Amino acid sequence: MHVIADLTVVPLGVGLSLSPYVVEVERILDAAGLAHQLHPNGTSVEGDWDAVLAAVKRCHEVLHGQGVPRVHTELRLGTRTDKDQRMADKTASVQAKLG
Amino acid sequence: MHVIADLTVVPLGVGLSLSPYVVEVERILDAAGLAHQLHPNGTSVEGDWDAVLAAVKRCHEVLHGQGVPRVHTELRLGTRTDKDQRMADKTASVQAKLG
Amino acid sequence: MHVIADLTVVPLGVGLSLSPYVVEVERILDAAGLAHQLHPNGTSVEGDWDAVLAAVKRCHEVLHGQGVPRVHTELRLGTRTDKDQRMADKTASVQAKLG
Amino acid sequence: MHVIADLTVVPLGVGLSLSPYVVEVERILDAAGLAHQLHPNGTSVEGDWDAVLAAVKRCHEVLHGQGVPRVHTELRLGTRTDKDQRMADKTASVQAKLG
Repeated sequence: MHVIADLTVVPLGVGLSLSPYVVEVERILDAAGLAHQLHPNGTSVEGDWDAVLAAVKRCHEVLHGQGVPRVHTELRLGTRTDKDQRMADKTASVQAKLG
Repeated sequence: MHVIADLTVVPLGVGLSLSPYVVEVERILDAAGLAHQLHPNGTSVEGDWDAVLAAVKRCHEVLHGQGVPRVHTELRLGTRTDKDQRMADKTASVQAKLG
Repeated sequence: MHVIADLTVVPLGVGLSLSPYVVEVERILDAAGLAHQLHPNGTSVEGDWDAVLAAVKRCHEVLHGQGVPRVHTELRLGTRTDKDQRMADKTASVQAKLG
Repeated sequence: MHVIADLTVVPLGVGLSLSPYVVEVERILDAAGLAHQLHPNGTSVEGDWDAVLAAVKRCHEVLHGQGVPRVHTELRLGTRTDKDQRMADKTASVQAKLG
């Protein structure tokens, strides 16, 4: 089952600068070999359901291992059976209509 | 790793009445033996990370199996290492302060 | 335009105990005269669109005024024109089908 | 109050192809003069709180006006008082650390 996901990881109890933790998330997604794309409020990521969700779990484990006491994640998960769709198709379809 | 989650499953392509699918989600969480609590915009659920996430995957599989062509889920995931916290503790803590 | 919303306010840079801030959110919703219902991962709130969104803005203003340097809110907003629906209808409809 | 937001608008009851509605959202944000950036699971948008939230309301109004009976929106809202931050700063900060 292919999933297109959107992942926002919010570490709590470590102050205001969250970018070092977003960097960690990017590295975990890279190491998992998952296609992903950073945006201002999170990261789009896609792949096999189990691989994507294993990477999300790893984000929590790694951040806790680095001393983050509380991790709050928001995850959007989209699956469909009517057609084979990839992340790039979603933005391309909108861009094409915007002309 | 214990997780307190919030799960909103939105089936697309099946019209406007979504409650039959929310019922299905509740049954899947029951069958998984997970503590959960329905609210107007989703369901709070808690338990071992792997058990909670396996139930979310099952929601997508079962809904697709029932003919839902597209499933959009929003999931909030909270883990912490500083203390052992359960769902009921979170609301109780606020209620106590509200007096 | 009536909206059924779900509001999760996450204050950043103030440590791990967030319940005092959730208490503040509840008080703001009370003061606004909006129907609302606390759950483990946020608060369901409903009312006229402008009144609900004004209360969300007030949450950010009040928390910043109390010294919270960064506020992250997740908001789900549902509106519909096919029928008049209230928060209580949504859970009642599911509960009835669960039997 | 400057807000960096993430907006995902999900129209319900209109079938599976949602891109025409995402196009509408992009046009509303353009017309409002707001900086925004499409990504695979939504749109990042920033500006004055009132202008951003007025545009979100307009999305619901316009989609309902086009016959969409139910609109579900997920909105992330971030404000901060410790520094002046723009959308582009957030991704640049992560990219710089990734090297």
